[in-house]
Amino acid sequence: MFSSYLKQSKILLKSVPSLRMSSSLAPLDATKLTITTTTSPKEKLPNEKLVFGQTFTDHMLKIAFSFKTGWAAPEIVPYGPLALDPSSCVFHYAFELFEGLKAYKDKNGDIRMFRPDKNMIRMNKSADRICLPTFDSEELTKLIGELLKLDNRFIPSEKGYSMYIRPTLIGTSAGLGVHTPDEALLFVICSPVGPYYKTGFKAVRLEATDYATRAWPGGVGDKKLGANYAPCVKPQLEAAKRGYQQNLWLFGPERNVTEVGTMNFFCAFKDSKTGKNELVTAPLDGTILEGVTRDSILSLARERLNPEEWTISERYCTIDEIAEKSEKGELLEAFGSGTAAIVSPIKEIGYNGKDIQVPLLPGEQSGPLTKQFLTWIQELQYGDVESDWSRVFKTK
Amino acid sequence: MFSSYLKQSKILLKSVPSLRMSSSLAPLDATKLTITTTTSPKEKLPNEKLVFGQTFTDHMLKIAFSFKTGWAAPEIVPYGPLALDPSSCVFHYAFELFEGLKAYKDKNGDIRMFRPDKNMIRMNKSADRICLPTFDSEELTKLIGELLKLDNRFIPSEKGYSMYIRPTLIGTSAGLGVHTPDEALLFVICSPVGPYYKTGFKAVRLEATDYATRAWPGGVGDKKLGANYAPCVKPQLEAAKRGYQQNLWLFGPERNVTEVGTMNFFCAFKDSKTGKNELVTAPLDGTILEGVTRDSILSLARERLNPEEWTISERYCTIDEIAEKSEKGELLEAFGSGTAAIVSPIKEIGYNGKDIQVPLLPGEQSGPLTKQFLTWIQELQYGDVESDWSRVFKTK
Repeated sequence: MFSSYLKQSKILLKSVPSLRMSSSLAPLDATKLTITTTTSPKEKLPNEKLVFGQTFTDHMLKIAFSFKTGWAAPEIVPYGPLALDPSSCVFHYAFELFEGLKAYKDKNGDIRMFRPDKNMIRMNKSADRICLPTFDSEELTKLIGELLKLDNRFIPSEKGYSMYIRPTLIGTSAGLGVHTPDEALLFVICSPVGPYYKTGFKAVRLEATDYATRAWPGGVGDKKLGANYAPCVKPQLEAAKRGYQQNLWLFGPERNVTEVGTMNFFCAFKDSKTGKNELVTAPLDGTILEGVTRDSILSLARERLNPEEWTISERYCTIDEIAEKSEKGELLEAFGSGTAAIVSPIKEIGYNGKDIQVPLLPGEQSGPLTKQFLTWIQELQYGDVESDWSRVFKTK
Repeated sequence: MFSSYLKQSKILLKSVPSLRMSSSLAPLDATKLTITTTTSPKEKLPNEKLVFGQTFTDHMLKIAFSFKTGWAAPEIVPYGPLALDPSSCVFHYAFELFEGLKAYKDKNGDIRMFRPDKNMIRMNKSADRICLPTFDSEELTKLIGELLKLDNRFIPSEKGYSMYIRPTLIGTSAGLGVHTPDEALLFVICSPVGPYYKTGFKAVRLEATDYATRAWPGGVGDKKLGANYAPCVKPQLEAAKRGYQQNLWLFGPERNVTEVGTMNFFCAFKDSKTGKNELVTAPLDGTILEGVTRDSILSLARERLNPEEWTISERYCTIDEIAEKSEKGELLEAFGSGTAAIVSPIKEIGYNGKDIQVPLLPGEQSGPLTKQFLTWIQELQYGDVESDWSRVFKTK
C-alpha cells in the first residue's frame, strides 16, 4: 500500500510542467559578465587552517532576476554582504535553494570542476519546484569558471584540498504575500577547503531515527532546498547527546533506510548462499536527494566492480534487514556519500537500544569498498585519470 | 496502522527537551529598548489602497542574539534593509520562522493586539524546533506594543482595517556548516491592512490535493517555519490553472483532510438520523498548524453554540466522507480559518474530476456559521465586546 502511494506521487509530480521563463524574458547570458575586482585582497589562510565553509575568496558572482525582464547582466564583485528588505520572501517563506560542488587544481595548474553539469541540472529542478527562475546550465557553469579563474590563487593545489563552490538562489521580492517571487538573486560564493578527514578516515556512529522524518512522498526531499536542512539539526543534536554523530533517517512503518545526515546511504551485503555481494542504496523515488556522489559511486560500481561478484541495487532495505544481515555476518560495510566527505564510513548504527556493528578493515576506520570508491573518485577529480566528468578551465 | 504511527511520532517529538538558553545568557529584556526615530516619515496610503503585506510603517524592531552573550538590547530603528553575509545560514538552510498577528484600533483610540500570548507561545515552539533561540514572550509582547505606539498613526481606525504584525526570527551565523546557528536576529515589521474581503465574502473553490503533501508525521508542519511555505506555491499555481484558488491538502492513503492553502480547515455536518450537527476540524497531531484563529473558533463554538444542537470535534474527516455528506445533503458548510481572512468560506471542492458542492446562504457568499464566527471574532478584536483575548496598549 505504501509503495503504491509513493509511486503515484512520483508520477504526478513529474507531470507538472515548468512554470517560468517565457521566451520574452532575457536568458542568463555569460557574455554580459562585468567584473569589479576587490581593492582589498584577503590574506590567504595556510592550508592546515582551512575549516569547511568558514573562509571565502575575494569575489562572488551575482545575477539578479526580475519577473518582468528576466536575468540581468551577471556581475563578479568583491565578496560582501547582501542588503535585502526585511519583508523579502527568502526570510519568511524559505524561497531558497543551493548546490555544493568542488573544483580541483590538476598537475598542470588548471582548474577542474567535478561534474558541474549534474549540479546545474539539479539546481534547475530545485528552482522549478519552488517557483524560482530556471536558467541555462552551461551559462552558469561558464560564469563559475570565470569566478574560479579570478580567484585562482585561493584554490589549494595540495592533494586532498579543493575549492568548495556554493551556488545559491533566493527569492528577493519584498512583501508578505505567499506567491511566486517576482524577483530573485542567484549568487555563487567559494570556500577553499581541506580534506574532510585530515588524519585518514574516522568511521561514524549513526542513530537510526524514526521519531523525526526528513522527507516524504509528495514532499521536497529530493530537491536541494534550504527547507530540508534546518529541521534536521535538532534530531542531530539529540543523537549527539546519545553519542551518535549523525542520524540514519528511517521512513514509514517498514522503517526503510533512506539517508544519513545530509548524505546518501550505501551498504554492502553478502549472500552466503549464492556467495554474491550486493551494493545497496535507496532508489530515487522523490524522497531521496539525487546526490552527485551517489551517482558517481553507482556508475563506478557498475563499470568497475566484477558483475560476477557484485549486484548493484537501487532498492530500499529496512533497518531490520541490516540488523539481521549484521547478526548473520553478512553485512560487509556501510557508508554515507556526499560532496563534502566523498565517502564517510560507518561503524555502528544504534537501533532499538542496541548497536548494529558494521565491519571495518582490521585496525582501520573503513571497509575496503569505501576506500576503493574514495581512491577512484579522487583520481578523477584531480585529473590523474582523465574522464569527461571533469570540466577543465585553463589558467594560462 | 497509520494512526498509531502518527501517535507515536507526536509523543516522541514532545519528549525532546528545549536545547537553548542556558541561564548564563542575557534574557530578552524590554527595559533595555533604545529607539531611533526616522528622519523621513513615510506618506500614509489611503485605506482603500492598502494591499496585504505590501506597505510597512516607519519603524521596525530588531533584537540580535549571540550564542555567547544571549539577547542584545532591543532596538526600534527606521524600517530598512538587513545586510547579511551571503553565507548566512538563513539563505542556505532555512533557519527562519515567523508569526502573523493583528492589532486593532478600538473606539477609545487605544491599540488592541489580539491574543499575542498564543503567537508568542507558538513562536517559541517554532524556534526550539529549529534550534533558534527562545525568549520571554511577555518581553517581546511589550516591545511590539512600543513599536505599535510609535507607529500608531499607521493603524487604521476604520472597521475591517487593522495592523498586521510580522515577528520574524532568522539565523544569521556566517559559514556553510549545517549546525545550530551561533547568531540570530529577531525582527518585527508592521503592515497596515484592509479587510480581506473588501466587498463582502467571496467563497473559494478548492482543489483536493494528493500528489503533493504539505506535512508529515515527524515533520514540522505544526510549526510556523519558512520551510513549510515555498514548497506549497507550485501546487497552488497548478490548482489555479484548473480554476481553483487554493489547495485542500489531503494526507495518507485514507485521504484525510488536513488544511486549506495556508489556513486551517473547518466543515459542518448534519446527521439526519440524530438531527444533531457537528463542527469538524483536524486534530493537532503534529502535522496541523496550531492556528490561533482555529483555537478562537473552537473556543467560541464550545462556549456559544448550543450543545444540544452541536458537537464540536477535533478529528479527521476524509475527503470521501465530505463527498458522501454532500451527496446526502448533510454537508452544511466549510471554511478556512487564519489571521489574514479570519474565515474564508468555501463553495466547491474539486475531487476525482468532480466538484463537491458546499452550500451557501441563498444569494450570499458564505454559510450562516462562517458569518457568525466572523462577527463574534471581530467584536472581540475591536473591543466592542470585552475579553481577555485583547491586549490593550493605551495611546494616551
